[in-house]
Amino acid sequence: MSIALSNVENLLEAVPGAEVAVVANGSAVLFFVRQSPAHIRERLEALAGRGVKFYVCANSLRAHGIDSDDLLPFAEVVPAGIAKILELQAAGYLYVKP
Amino acid sequence: MSIALSNVENLLEAVPGAEVAVVANGSAVLFFVRQSPAHIRERLEALAGRGVKFYVCANSLRAHGIDSDDLLPFAEVVPAGIAKILELQAAGYLYVKP
Amino acid sequence: MSIALSNVENLLEAVPGAEVAVVANGSAVLFFVRQSPAHIRERLEALAGRGVKFYVCANSLRAHGIDSDDLLPFAEVVPAGIAKILELQAAGYLYVKP
Repeated sequence: MSIALSNVENLLEAVPGAEVAVVANGSAVLFFVRQSPAHIRERLEALAGRGVKFYVCANSLRAHGIDSDDLLPFAEVVPAGIAKILELQAAGYLYVKP
Repeated sequence: MSIALSNVENLLEAVPGAEVAVVANGSAVLFFVRQSPAHIRERLEALAGRGVKFYVCANSLRAHGIDSDDLLPFAEVVPAGIAKILELQAAGYLYVKP
Repeated sequence: MSIALSNVENLLEAVPGAEVAVVANGSAVLFFVRQSPAHIRERLEALAGRGVKFYVCANSLRAHGIDSDDLLPFAEVVPAGIAKILELQAAGYLYVKP
């Protein structure tokens, strides 16, 4: 997650105004709960405040027993992270795997 | 491999009828032998039965000393997995790295 | 890094003349110093000699305390590896994450 956030931060510094979406699945969804470590949560909040979209996979939430009510308010739940990644690419987003 | 298979299963649930190809290289090729663990083999077989294509890299087979005769029947050997990934993208497939 | 180099070597064998660019960020930049292990350095040099471009992320160099003067001569420093990956894709390169 730290690498993914650095990627986004570095991208926004290099290309201000870039439209960025992050899709979290697998254990990465653990970082999107309200009790997420402060140093991660603050970076997530700062990026959300700059317009970065954060999508969290419902399949992965279920696998980790996380209720969507426990998520940070800017985390948007999608039915399947994998489908969201493909949908974003089909919409013109370029893909990078952190 | 388990993550890759979940990706495919979740995608097919979210987008029934999606055309999916999996390219295995590196140590991932080990899962495509007939003696593969039953819980993996059964998921592979179920996906192959639903039309998912599985390509296995000949370079990686050679590196792991696996003969193509020992592979599961639906595993299609390609000379270079990396070239197959690019060929599929050039043909319009969207890429996801599990 | 060894996997990434095998990917490139296998690709060039399967598709001679393919135009290949490698973007190194994170700890991968450590392999681009002059003191890089000989078995890695020789593979890098051979690929550079065949026209492969190697881009190294300045953010990652800074994070690892590496001066760009210490890099192998064919390593081209870019301000942000993540931005370079996207720029290459926008220019028509297909993306693979090793």
